[in-house]
Amino acid sequence: MISQKWSKLIRSLHQKKYRKAEQLFFVEGEKAVLELLASGWQVEAVFATEAFLQRYPKQVSAAALVQQCSADELVKVGTFASNDAALAVVKMPAQTDFVPHSHGFVLVLDQINDPGNLGTIIRIADWYGIKHIVCSPDTADCYNPKVIAAAKGSFLRVQLHYQPLQPLLAQSRVPVYGAYLGGEPVHSLKLSEQGGFIVLGNEANGISAELEQVISRKITIPAFGEAESLNVGIAAAVICDNLLRLSQ
Amino acid sequence: MISQKWSKLIRSLHQKKYRKAEQLFFVEGEKAVLELLASGWQVEAVFATEAFLQRYPKQVSAAALVQQCSADELVKVGTFASNDAALAVVKMPAQTDFVPHSHGFVLVLDQINDPGNLGTIIRIADWYGIKHIVCSPDTADCYNPKVIAAAKGSFLRVQLHYQPLQPLLAQSRVPVYGAYLGGEPVHSLKLSEQGGFIVLGNEANGISAELEQVISRKITIPAFGEAESLNVGIAAAVICDNLLRLSQ
Repeated sequence: MISQKWSKLIRSLHQKKYRKAEQLFFVEGEKAVLELLASGWQVEAVFATEAFLQRYPKQVSAAALVQQCSADELVKVGTFASNDAALAVVKMPAQTDFVPHSHGFVLVLDQINDPGNLGTIIRIADWYGIKHIVCSPDTADCYNPKVIAAAKGSFLRVQLHYQPLQPLLAQSRVPVYGAYLGGEPVHSLKLSEQGGFIVLGNEANGISAELEQVISRKITIPAFGEAESLNVGIAAAVICDNLLRLSQ
Repeated sequence: MISQKWSKLIRSLHQKKYRKAEQLFFVEGEKAVLELLASGWQVEAVFATEAFLQRYPKQVSAAALVQQCSADELVKVGTFASNDAALAVVKMPAQTDFVPHSHGFVLVLDQINDPGNLGTIIRIADWYGIKHIVCSPDTADCYNPKVIAAAKGSFLRVQLHYQPLQPLLAQSRVPVYGAYLGGEPVHSLKLSEQGGFIVLGNEANGISAELEQVISRKITIPAFGEAESLNVGIAAAVICDNLLRLSQ
């Protein structure tokens, strides 16, 4: 059973202000909880069905508290429409600013509002071996349950930083690529070096005017048809794919 | 005002069985409705706010019936959380099987369940100039409001066909590419000709075993990091981007 105290806490963690106050968030579903338990992150509690606990007795021992409950209870406190496995309450790692160093590619998100898009971009970063994502302070919260769900286990491997973007990019010594309509086609870019910042703009408005001045190379995904634009997650994937291909 | 009769009809069109029975579906939001009205598709009715009607008097004249209503009414009958523009009820175009011909690339979807993924893939096809998508009969319905919303206006330009995939692909004279883990890397494919079928599999299970035999080339998106997989919409975009790049 999930006690009243824990139920109330988990439900409060649907909202950013309580996540921030408690410095906690939650992770749902079999695969994500298993990856979490193997990660070394500080897991405060795991609530899981009998079947899950019987199957993974060793793995759950990584959590400070383990409690058996029903699938119904998991659905009631969480966000999934069905969850017959587990839900874990996790301590947020300390947030740090991104410190420029000799790095590969770093994604920069300028006010990405949709949690699903942010989660998708975290998963894409992980696929392409990108370790850091720098977000404008008004980008969606990376501990939103929808972000965690869309990121699959990738939130464990990609570090997110929330900080003002302009000062970071203005002093950059590496290229700052920005996704625009009408820039250099990404299929045939000549890269001056491996790595750099890749800036993606807001879903409706693109990259903000303030940041435009610090973009050193405007790049574009070549269109062959008539769609006006691509979703920002899709654009992130295609740009990363081309830049990583050209860096090899 | 939206009459009781129309309200009831539009609400019924949230469900596939009524869409099929009536051969109608609906389109929501300013941009999509405007694209629709300019497309030549048979629009049975447009329900729109005063502001929309004042702004686009000429465009709405393409609809058989035009009715003014409130934003609240639009939200009540539709699926959007907010809609202060318009909703259109549209006649479905006749469904036809895909007839192989001298074509460029054609997307083939093997049991894509998620309407959001299907809509995203339609938009991607449109970006890459792909005119046809062939879907297994159990793929999500392309007139689902979530598909229409995610496709933006691209559903007007990309033709979808629902039919058994195996017979079509078994007799193909053009390459049948299939997205797998562990196939030829898409970055460095040597294409024998321009065009072919691009098969994408189910979100959880990939391409079905039955279809595997008719795949002539297994292809893979190179990974540089640790994510286990990519979302099917993301995979579709990266594969299309590479195949179109290599076909130029």
